[in-house]
Formats: sequence, C-alpha cells, structure tokens
Amino acid sequence: MEETLKKRIKELEEELQRKEKCSVREKISEMSAEVVDSNPYSRLMALKRMGIVNNYEKIRDFTVAVVGVGGVGSVTAEMLTRCGIGKLILFDYDKVEMANMNRLFFQPHQAGLSKVEAAALTLNAINPDVVIDTYNYNITTIDNFSNFMETIRTGSLTQGPVDLVLSCVDNFEARMAINAACNELGQTWFESGVSENAVSGHIQLLVPGVSACFACAPPLVVASKIDERTLKKEGVCAASLPTTMGIVAGFLVQNVLKKLLGFGEVSWYLGYNALEDFFPRMQMKPNTNCDDSFCRQRQLERPPPTPPPTPASAEPQEVLHDDNEWGISLEDEDAGDQSAYGGGDIKGLVEGVRTAYSVPQPSDNTSDVVQESEISLEELMAQMKSI
Amino acid sequence: MEETLKKRIKELEEELQRKEKCSVREKISEMSAEVVDSNPYSRLMALKRMGIVNNYEKIRDFTVAVVGVGGVGSVTAEMLTRCGIGKLILFDYDKVEMANMNRLFFQPHQAGLSKVEAAALTLNAINPDVVIDTYNYNITTIDNFSNFMETIRTGSLTQGPVDLVLSCVDNFEARMAINAACNELGQTWFESGVSENAVSGHIQLLVPGVSACFACAPPLVVASKIDERTLKKEGVCAASLPTTMGIVAGFLVQNVLKKLLGFGEVSWYLGYNALEDFFPRMQMKPNTNCDDSFCRQRQLERPPPTPPPTPASAEPQEVLHDDNEWGISLEDEDAGDQSAYGGGDIKGLVEGVRTAYSVPQPSDNTSDVVQESEISLEELMAQMKSI
Repeated sequence: MEETLKKRIKELEEELQRKEKCSVREKISEMSAEVVDSNPYSRLMALKRMGIVNNYEKIRDFTVAVVGVGGVGSVTAEMLTRCGIGKLILFDYDKVEMANMNRLFFQPHQAGLSKVEAAALTLNAINPDVVIDTYNYNITTIDNFSNFMETIRTGSLTQGPVDLVLSCVDNFEARMAINAACNELGQTWFESGVSENAVSGHIQLLVPGVSACFACAPPLVVASKIDERTLKKEGVCAASLPTTMGIVAGFLVQNVLKKLLGFGEVSWYLGYNALEDFFPRMQMKPNTNCDDSFCRQRQLERPPPTPPPTPASAEPQEVLHDDNEWGISLEDEDAGDQSAYGGGDIKGLVEGVRTAYSVPQPSDNTSDVVQESEISLEELMAQMKSI
Repeated sequence: MEETLKKRIKELEEELQRKEKCSVREKISEMSAEVVDSNPYSRLMALKRMGIVNNYEKIRDFTVAVVGVGGVGSVTAEMLTRCGIGKLILFDYDKVEMANMNRLFFQPHQAGLSKVEAAALTLNAINPDVVIDTYNYNITTIDNFSNFMETIRTGSLTQGPVDLVLSCVDNFEARMAINAACNELGQTWFESGVSENAVSGHIQLLVPGVSACFACAPPLVVASKIDERTLKKEGVCAASLPTTMGIVAGFLVQNVLKKLLGFGEVSWYLGYNALEDFFPRMQMKPNTNCDDSFCRQRQLERPPPTPPPTPASAEPQEVLHDDNEWGISLEDEDAGDQSAYGGGDIKGLVEGVRTAYSVPQPSDNTSDVVQESEISLEELMAQMKSI
C-alpha cells in the first residue's frame, strides 16, 4: 500500500515538474547567428547578413522602461523581449481582467494577477535572457513619482539612465508625469496612444529641447479646468481592438529598434487611421514659452541647428515651418499630403486631424460637435500636441 | 505515515488540477455589451456605441481560413480569436522551433509540436467560443489540394463556403495554389507577405474577376524556369522581426474586420516600408489574358462597372489607369505619392517598388543588381504583382 502511494507521489511530482519546467528555456550567454532550428536568435542575427543592422548583438546592452502594460504596453514588452533587449522595466498598477482578453498578450488564466507580475512571468518564459524589473504602482503619486524618476535615472544595466522610456498609458495625467520626468532628466522617450473608438492611434518621439514636449501645446484639459476623471461615465467603456493595439505597438517597437540600433529613419510622429489606412507623419518643434521650465532649459542647452548636408537629406528640414499664435513650430514631413491637414494654419491642422481621427467618414458632416466629441479629450489632446 | 502520503497525493492532485483548469474559461453563449471586468467582449461590443460597427455580434457567423500559421498567420489567428470570430480553419505542416521565438505567439514550451496543434490549444484557451479546425498538411500536393478546395467550399459554420481565405504563407508555390483554388471557387481572399530582410511587407485583397489575381502579372519564376527551392542556400536563413510580422497581421485582420463587418474603407493593397515608415496603397485590375482560365471566366461573369455615384466617392476610380504591355490595368490610389512609383509606366512602377522594398536606402545605388537580389524573388514577385 505504502509503495503504491509513494509511486503515485513520484508520478504526480514528475508531472508537475514537467509542467513547470517546460515553460522556460535555458539562458543563452551569447547571441549566435548559427542557422539551426534550436537557435532563437538566428532570424534576428540574419538582419546583419541582410545589411539592415551593423551590430545586432548591441541590443543586449540597452534598457527600456515601459510605462503602462495594457493593450499597447504588453505587446511592446513582448516584442522587445523576443528581440532580446537587455533589460525591461515595467510600470503598471492594474490587474488583468477578462475584459482585457480582446487584446493580445494576457490570457484568461492570468485574470486577477497584477499586470506587471503576469507579464514578467510570461516574458521570462519566452526569453529568460532579458532582465525584467517590475514596479506595481501608479507613477503619478508624489512618492511613486520620485521613485519612478530615480528608476529612470539609474535603472540601466550599468546603473545609469535607461536608454528609452516608452509611454503606453491611457490617460493625460500619466503622460504629463512621464513628460515632466523626462524633461527634468533630459531623457528621450516615445509616446503612444490609441483612440477610444479603437480605430486610430499614433506614436511620437520626444527629445527634450529638440522636439515639442507633451506640455508645449496648450494643455486644454488644464486650461478648461476639466477633471478628466469626470469624463468617464458609469457603465461606459472605451472600445478597443487587438489589431489597432498590435499595429501601434509594432510601430513603436520598430522605431525603438531603428533608434537604438541605428538603421532606417526614425519617425517623429506616425499616425494610423484604420478606417482609411492613412498614416500621417509630421514633426513639432518645442514651444519657447512652454509651461515646463525644464523643457525651456533643455531648449537653451540645445546646440544651434546645422543646415542639412544635402537638399535630398532625410533629416528634418528646419525651413518648412511657420510660427503661429501658440509659438509652436510645425513641420509636415509628408508634403504630398498637405491638404489633409487643412493647408498649413494651426486651426486647419487641428481640424484636419480631428477629421482624420474622429469616427465620421470623410463624407459626413465633420463640423458636427457631437460627432467630434466621440473622440476622447485625452486622445484629441494627444493628436493636437502631435501636430 | 499512510495519512501523510495520502495528504501529499491530494495536494499534488489539486495543484495539477489547478494548472490544467486555469487555462480555459467557460463558453459564453451570447456576446454582451455589459461593462463589467468579467466580460471578454465589452470592449468589442463598445464599437457599436462608438458608431464604428452596426452589428458586432455578426462576427460569430463568419468563418475564416488561415493558410500558414507562421509569423503572420499565428498572430492573425490570435487577433481573430480575440475578436470572437465564429470559426477558424488553420492549415500548416510545419513544427514549432526555437528559431520561431523571435516572432509573437508561439512559446518555447511548444517547440516540437505541430504549428496547427499548438496554435489550436493556445487559441482555445484564449477564447473557447471560437470553433477551430486544423489541417496539418501541405496544400500544394495533389491530394491535399483537392481536400483544401473542398474545405474552402464547405467549411463554414453552415457547411457553405468560408467567408475569407487568408494567405499567410512564405512561398510562391503555396500562393499560386491558393490563387488557383480561389479563382475556381470565386472565393475572395487576402494575400500577405513579409520580405526576407524583415523590413517590409504588404497585404492585398483579391476578388476573382474584379481585381488582378496572383497569376495576372507574368509569373517570372515560371517564365524564367527557376525552381524557387534552389534559391534557398544551405545555412542561410531569412531575417524576421516580431514588429513587421505583427504590423502586417494587424493590417490584415483590420481589413478583414472592415470587409466582414462593413465599416471604413478596405484597402486593395497596403504596403509597409519599415525603414521609412512609408505605406503605399494601390489597386491592380485583372489581366484579360491571364494564364488562369478561371480568372478569365470570373472576369467575364463580372457585371459591367457602374460609374461612381459622386466624384468624391471612395470607390475605385475606373478612369485613372493606363493599359500597358502586359494588359494589366493599374490604379494608384494615393495620387500624392505618384512620384514614389516612378511616374506611371509599369517599368518605373516596378523599379519604384523595388527601391522602396529592397535593402538599400534611397541614397544608395539601387540599380546595383547584387543589392537588388537581396530581396527574395518570391517577394519581388509579390511586389510586382501587387502594383
């Protein structure tokens, strides 16, 4: 009898061990380009042979902070993990819910876990070579914000500043917190966002002192004294789609790879309008009267711009913009699509983007205020800031 | 002693049961828009309240066949599963390898399983409401091809034809097989592809008799009698990135949703050039001299085109194209980007796309034959066909 019981225990233990063990592979000390089925890096190292990237292995030196591990942030973290990034630092304070299952990444059995904890478990199973730190808190409270700043400043693999901060949050307050931290630290970051109707999104590169910061455009939410939280009505939830979230995460990580590994052209702003498959690109220069004193300080520290080396250069062309009533300089990188933004004055530009990003089709009456209000204030802010 | 052993057995059994059970949720008989954390469909049903989709629940009636469950196909299947598609039919004959871990979806513990089997397990855990059929075979052999045709013809939830076929394969032969089947059956399908240098891709809608089919443009591989398999050198593998694959899957499923649920504008062809964040859109009409007799037959069955209702209509404009030496009519939907395709003649168009899709930057010498050969013949074919 005792023997039978002991045998059963052994069987069960082995079965459990198998289930635990099979989810994690061994660490790999050096990236290899060897073309064998067992090498998880062969298709990435092939980017060198294809002439796309000079030194792919360098990806292991970089640290990226992802703030917000929701529809965009979780896929962003997974893509960077599969690419073999050196270190990821994840910030979120939400729990996984069944209502998140319409986006990629989280699975039903993770419902109830904290998002950062669940994400770290999955990412570690996918690629144990990536160092993953998690912070299960809201970065906008005073104590957490100072810890967030310190983590950004010292969180890299060599205890220096992280290489990039990626904003994947869903609210204005958190974006402003990231913006304030990055301006003070002179930290380059990417912003991302998806509209509440789920059919548009964008990514944006912010280099303190060089590009407009998130506070450079007049903060309408602040100016009009609207508390964003009162906009969220009881029983009303935003729409979301795995497609739009996945595409925005893809754009974000692709531009992160281009920036870190030095290939291709990094977009300053790349928008996505799913209804029309329309992709606006543009650039916004900083506001010399920005409310954020660190933004103004970073602008003063910026060396004077050098003229572009050749007229056909892919570098931003400093001569294209006009000044406007807000003191913000605008550049439209896609000259062929000027008309889409209303011809150049900032009112026209904002309305153009409103049209492109709001629910109605081009044939609808887009001047209708009720229709325009279907795009969230937060998203409208993001769109206005980014043009 | 016996008590202790029995207690240990109970513990282990419970632990195992927890591990098995937690991976699947209960089925949901009807999609609800109720905004509670436990509802996996709340964010999708919100598309109705946001004015994007009239009848989201209809998604449960549709059947989509996904041919190829690799970097694009697996993410495509996951997105459709999370959207709550009625039925998915998956075709593939590969096994999961560690070398696939640089793309989304598959995880290390699935290495060695067949791709369709591993995918079905994961997808069922994510959303058990989706009916998933799998075919673990190569569609290009004679027997399998006839089974493939039959499955497309009778595979829907009501034993009729599937609603869409999605080509997510990585070779010319399989694309031609899907093309032949869809022309014969009059089956609408989407093609997708990612270049071997990992930094460009495309999706394309093919409606037999209405748009160019995959055989309408001269099949260079056939014409030049090159066996594609001899192009794959020993020890050389293509590069791939989770970003590009995820973006192409996102474009594909977004256009599938637009087509099935009737919102927005479906793209005939949407390209993605990651190095420049450039997105060509265009349309190609069928070749009246196409080698595929079923393509010619479908063209004859097509009702004569009606003039567009208004000049500003989003419908394809039948007047924009020029005939050319191949008898193929071309339309460039993005008039502002004409110059990118070399000004209009088909040689220029092909070269323009070659430039955009090949490894070298615009400033490099793109007429260098060695550089051009770095883009796969198969991908070049796909690009040539799609302009």
